[in-house]
Amino acid sequence: MNKKLIPEIIVTRLPVYLRCLQRMLQEGKSVTSSQELGERVGISAAQIRKDLSQFGEFGKQGRGYQIEFLRKQIEEILHIDHEWEIAVVGAGDIGSAVAQYRGFIDRGFKVKMIFDNKPEKINQQIGVFYIQDSANMKEAIREADIKVAMICVPAEAAQEVANQLVAAGVKAILNYAPINISVPKSVRVQYIDPSIHLQNMTYYLE
Amino acid sequence: MNKKLIPEIIVTRLPVYLRCLQRMLQEGKSVTSSQELGERVGISAAQIRKDLSQFGEFGKQGRGYQIEFLRKQIEEILHIDHEWEIAVVGAGDIGSAVAQYRGFIDRGFKVKMIFDNKPEKINQQIGVFYIQDSANMKEAIREADIKVAMICVPAEAAQEVANQLVAAGVKAILNYAPINISVPKSVRVQYIDPSIHLQNMTYYLE
Repeated sequence: MNKKLIPEIIVTRLPVYLRCLQRMLQEGKSVTSSQELGERVGISAAQIRKDLSQFGEFGKQGRGYQIEFLRKQIEEILHIDHEWEIAVVGAGDIGSAVAQYRGFIDRGFKVKMIFDNKPEKINQQIGVFYIQDSANMKEAIREADIKVAMICVPAEAAQEVANQLVAAGVKAILNYAPINISVPKSVRVQYIDPSIHLQNMTYYLE
Repeated sequence: MNKKLIPEIIVTRLPVYLRCLQRMLQEGKSVTSSQELGERVGISAAQIRKDLSQFGEFGKQGRGYQIEFLRKQIEEILHIDHEWEIAVVGAGDIGSAVAQYRGFIDRGFKVKMIFDNKPEKINQQIGVFYIQDSANMKEAIREADIKVAMICVPAEAAQEVANQLVAAGVKAILNYAPINISVPKSVRVQYIDPSIHLQNMTYYLE
């Protein structure tokens, strides 16, 4: 399957479908329909059928989808049929919350290590982790062959951290620092900045 | 200005431009160009000029943009020329981190109150806040005329919280619970779910 052929907008919807399917399984359901899925995620049934058809045949006309089967298929497509280890950089409020976030369980991710550069934080415990010195970050990440990282440092430090992560072999960065970072084309970046999300909404408020 | 005429994709870029302009001001800069802005946010100069032209004339051909002026204009467009008060629902790890998040300063938002329904949390202090009983949430939010809220409760509680927020008059919800919620068309919802962001990236990894 040529990845270039699948529009990115479709890829962004797959994790939303997957999250809903996982919830349905938790609720004890085993079969669903594009109508039901659509109502729960706020996307039309036609769009869902069209999106899924890009990747194969997952249901039979009129019989709906076997949830467990569809879940496994989407997990394979998203490459989370195995667990990705994550390095967290920055052990402030956000980094600490992220390192202990229970929402990664069953979603394909596991925080493996957390770094900070402040002497008073190094070797302190957060949940099950001991905060490591970010001076050793590049080596530790490379040695553990970690490909996914989260940046939770202040804006002014984010680019330098990103440079080190890239040098360590990281290929996907989730950046919580409120600043755009530059990385090579072979590395993916996504951003979480609550102020940006809020401003997207206040535009529409009086 | 008819809001319907501005494509939503353009609106989503304005906060990113604004964040960069604020950083430039912090760096002591007073003038920028669409080229420079574009390099820093990873968007083409032509796209930036086109986006901004939707809202008016903000710079002179060949002279660039006065950063402070452009910042104020974008803040007005996004309705953050005044501060929005926020109610946070859920005082777990995420809610506590969000309530104390320093990244709202100068970005148009201020957390005003935080709620939880667990007896052992009510009246506990988080930063400058005392956690309030969510039984009083609807009334407290309505009385304070708060229009913006963040949901930081477990997935299974999110819809009920959303219903109460809507009933209290909230018009914009940032939902950290990993589930889609239904609200009337007059209410905006945005989502923050790090697993979704990560899955969007692992799709492209081997």
